Amino acid sequence: MIEIIGLDAIGEVGEGADLASILADALHAKNIELRDGDVLVVTQKIVSKAEGRMIALDAVLPDAAAQELAATTRKDPRLVALVQAESSAVVRAVPHVLITRHNTGHVMANAGIDQSNLGPDRDGFALLLPQDPDASAARLHEALGVAVVISDSFGRPWRYGVVNVAIGAAGLPALIDRRGEQDRDGRILEVTQVALADAVASAAGLATGEGAEGVPAALVRGLRWDAPDVPAAAIVRPPHEDLFR
Amino acid sequence: MIEIIGLDAIGEVGEGADLASILADALHAKNIELRDGDVLVVTQKIVSKAEGRMIALDAVLPDAAAQELAATTRKDPRLVALVQAESSAVVRAVPHVLITRHNTGHVMANAGIDQSNLGPDRDGFALLLPQDPDASAARLHEALGVAVVISDSFGRPWRYGVVNVAIGAAGLPALIDRRGEQDRDGRILEVTQVALADAVASAAGLATGEGAEGVPAALVRGLRWDAPDVPAAAIVRPPHEDLFR
Repeated sequence: MIEIIGLDAIGEVGEGADLASILADALHAKNIELRDGDVLVVTQKIVSKAEGRMIALDAVLPDAAAQELAATTRKDPRLVALVQAESSAVVRAVPHVLITRHNTGHVMANAGIDQSNLGPDRDGFALLLPQDPDASAARLHEALGVAVVISDSFGRPWRYGVVNVAIGAAGLPALIDRRGEQDRDGRILEVTQVALADAVASAAGLATGEGAEGVPAALVRGLRWDAPDVPAAAIVRPPHEDLFR
Repeated sequence: MIEIIGLDAIGEVGEGADLASILADALHAKNIELRDGDVLVVTQKIVSKAEGRMIALDAVLPDAAAQELAATTRKDPRLVALVQAESSAVVRAVPHVLITRHNTGHVMANAGIDQSNLGPDRDGFALLLPQDPDASAARLHEALGVAVVISDSFGRPWRYGVVNVAIGAAGLPALIDRRGEQDRDGRILEVTQVALADAVASAAGLATGEGAEGVPAALVRGLRWDAPDVPAAAIVRPPHEDLFR
């Protein structure tokens, strides 16, 4: 059996907060002792807050390119300037839609920049993704001793609605390569790569929601895997293998 | 707490099998009594098998269009002919990749047609998706009294690896519309639609795997929702809203 336990005893996380201690306290508050095979899924928002990724929009001076992209997408030019700084390429820009390839490689809306649930008195602020979510996950993994996934909610091109995916991972195989394995009847498997960390992030999302619910982390217990650890960066399909080029 | 319990006491499912009884027996074998809020996630493969969607490739006569698409994608012309019959449009066709819009609206590789884990002595066969997976889910929902999701593993355009998504759903809101809701600080939420059934399918995938593991169904327990039931068809983004047109 797999269990998903929401960690709700986490207050507002401020810049410079010791997230590993906060998570350890939240686990303690639920009488949970970490064990082998546990995966701690932490929503991006509290990681970004702890890492001081909050930006006052008033401090952003959009250049001409940002102004132009803002006109196309009908978005705040200051937000668009932040998206551009955080991204290596624009994937799609139409009214109300701005999808880019974030500097980490992940393709997502608005470079993952949040403007909701930033805390009280945070109107006019925006929250960027952690600079290196795999490194953030690795630090938490080292401090807490269990696998860590950093999740964010992503839209999908052909499907309505967001699901949570992994933007950072440490201590587990974010992607499992099964190429060459056989099915139960001895035929080569058609499914060859499994995005374990994305599935774990989606599962944890059933407990955390999408950030408005006050449950910013969840423990996923009871998984087993038999593959080498790889970070969430391994899930990123590079541009030259992008199905839409 | 949310629990995911794999249902492994399910043997080979044959055409015409009473899947509701098989699932009830598998739950009974685990001493599970269904309760409110339970979601039974059933992998597409056993639904298709029960519904007699197995086709002998030798019985397929590919026409000129299928031959041409098979040459482009380097796939078996008989398989390609089946994909075409099951699809309303080709989305992407390059060597080894054939992505179409299935007649149900879902965009996926090979119209969801399987050739692995079809059972012993099933070389030369292919398994189509259920004709109407939402209707299949509705029948199981009616027979068993709990929410039902029919899952399949999908690739994603910008990310390596498959995750499970919902191709059928009944008795739960496959898509939750939160437009107009506010965040904890009173701002309008940025995330406005949540693909609950996809997240449930991904979560169940942690127990079922991708079909080669002999765990063709899972129970997801402990969810709560407060939105009207909608089928998996509601998740399909119609072609005119496709992010890539």
